Amino acid sequence: MRTRFILIQTSHAGNVGGAARAMKVMGFDDLVLVAPRWANVLRREETIQRASGANDVLARARIVDTLDEALDGVDHLCATAMTPRDFGPPTRSPREHFQRLLVGGQGECEDDRSARPGGVAFLFGSERFGMRNEDVYRCHACLSIPTDPAFGSLNLAAAVQLIAYDWRLALGPWGSTPVSNLQPRLADAASVAGMLAHLEQALVAIDFLDPAAPKKLMPRLNQMFNRAALQEEEIHILRGVAKAMLETAARSRR
Amino acid sequence: MRTRFILIQTSHAGNVGGAARAMKVMGFDDLVLVAPRWANVLRREETIQRASGANDVLARARIVDTLDEALDGVDHLCATAMTPRDFGPPTRSPREHFQRLLVGGQGECEDDRSARPGGVAFLFGSERFGMRNEDVYRCHACLSIPTDPAFGSLNLAAAVQLIAYDWRLALGPWGSTPVSNLQPRLADAASVAGMLAHLEQALVAIDFLDPAAPKKLMPRLNQMFNRAALQEEEIHILRGVAKAMLETAARSRR
Repeated sequence: MRTRFILIQTSHAGNVGGAARAMKVMGFDDLVLVAPRWANVLRREETIQRASGANDVLARARIVDTLDEALDGVDHLCATAMTPRDFGPPTRSPREHFQRLLVGGQGECEDDRSARPGGVAFLFGSERFGMRNEDVYRCHACLSIPTDPAFGSLNLAAAVQLIAYDWRLALGPWGSTPVSNLQPRLADAASVAGMLAHLEQALVAIDFLDPAAPKKLMPRLNQMFNRAALQEEEIHILRGVAKAMLETAARSRR
Repeated sequence: MRTRFILIQTSHAGNVGGAARAMKVMGFDDLVLVAPRWANVLRREETIQRASGANDVLARARIVDTLDEALDGVDHLCATAMTPRDFGPPTRSPREHFQRLLVGGQGECEDDRSARPGGVAFLFGSERFGMRNEDVYRCHACLSIPTDPAFGSLNLAAAVQLIAYDWRLALGPWGSTPVSNLQPRLADAASVAGMLAHLEQALVAIDFLDPAAPKKLMPRLNQMFNRAALQEEEIHILRGVAKAMLETAARSRR
């Protein structure tokens, strides 16, 4: 889905670079700056430094004078603001709103029955003053990122990062299937029992376990190994340890 | 739940400040730096500037020389790394892992049945090199933040922000009290590390582990014990076994 990030009256060049990087790392590249403090902000050293490789996002970013000019081709606007406004759009957490937006048409409320949008824009206000009421009023939703009530000072680029992340996860992963480790083969109960018997002998041999007063040692070790969900290879390792213990004990008795 | 953020060999002061702010905005304040590039990083101008009001987090931050010194009081370690490692802990997205961790005991998989941890640490590697394998091996999970496969260059402070956000949402909003559970006391990471060091000596003494060619034995055992979520009493048992092995080996050499 077309996704645009719009920064309004941004004053810190570092944040523009940080926002570009935050977008790109989540697979987004459409950045528009409305009336930034510095006309040359896209070429400033701090911007480029903080963008750290997201140069293509900076290269295709647009600078415009008014919010209107930033809104072509998007049909769903999300404000980001700490404080709900009277008369403003509904305030929701990003996750909740994205869920509603993407399942579109299945909600109970009036505003959920709309069709899934064709293009979404996320609007971010200036570092010092946030979003103006009149800009918030234009939006379909006001996204409020949950923060500590006693310290809600979220950095602008960090806010872009969080929205980009939640939106990416809501849209669904890239081509998917990352990271799944090949599941190692778990040891079956019989081989765990065999290993424990072997280990028990070894613990007796090194004088740690007194067969006349075993207490609950073996049941405890059994529980511990059960929780570990032992793999077959680990059974071999543990049996190797038991064998070495037995051999050492035999040598100590010569 | 006790939550610590650990930055290992961080080189950019701005990232330390940004991380402090990212933590505080999500209600966390326990920051430890392991061998940062600048000894005075907590007092550098860029740090303070980027912290933007999170001065109390900087003020109580600790600087230590080794990862071991950073782990007191935490019993569940999460690495953050882009690439899964052989022999490493399972790689999961933050959201998936947090879900498993907090519902603990209700999962379908064996490794979900462990007790809910008492303290969690999130580990972040250096900006240039990420995390070292040996540090990843110590962890219970490797968190992989979903990023664009073509541009995975997530800024360090941005990664802290995302993890802090997901963890905060997983813990539940401010004000809610976490569920207290009568679980056995889990061993903290420092005592697991101490037990492993003891066991390693013992395995060398009984000629099972060749220090000249250790292969991946200790990382494997570390992972196995991590999955078991060791209790304090089990640490005592395992140290008792190691001690008996060392004594038997000493006798065998007389």
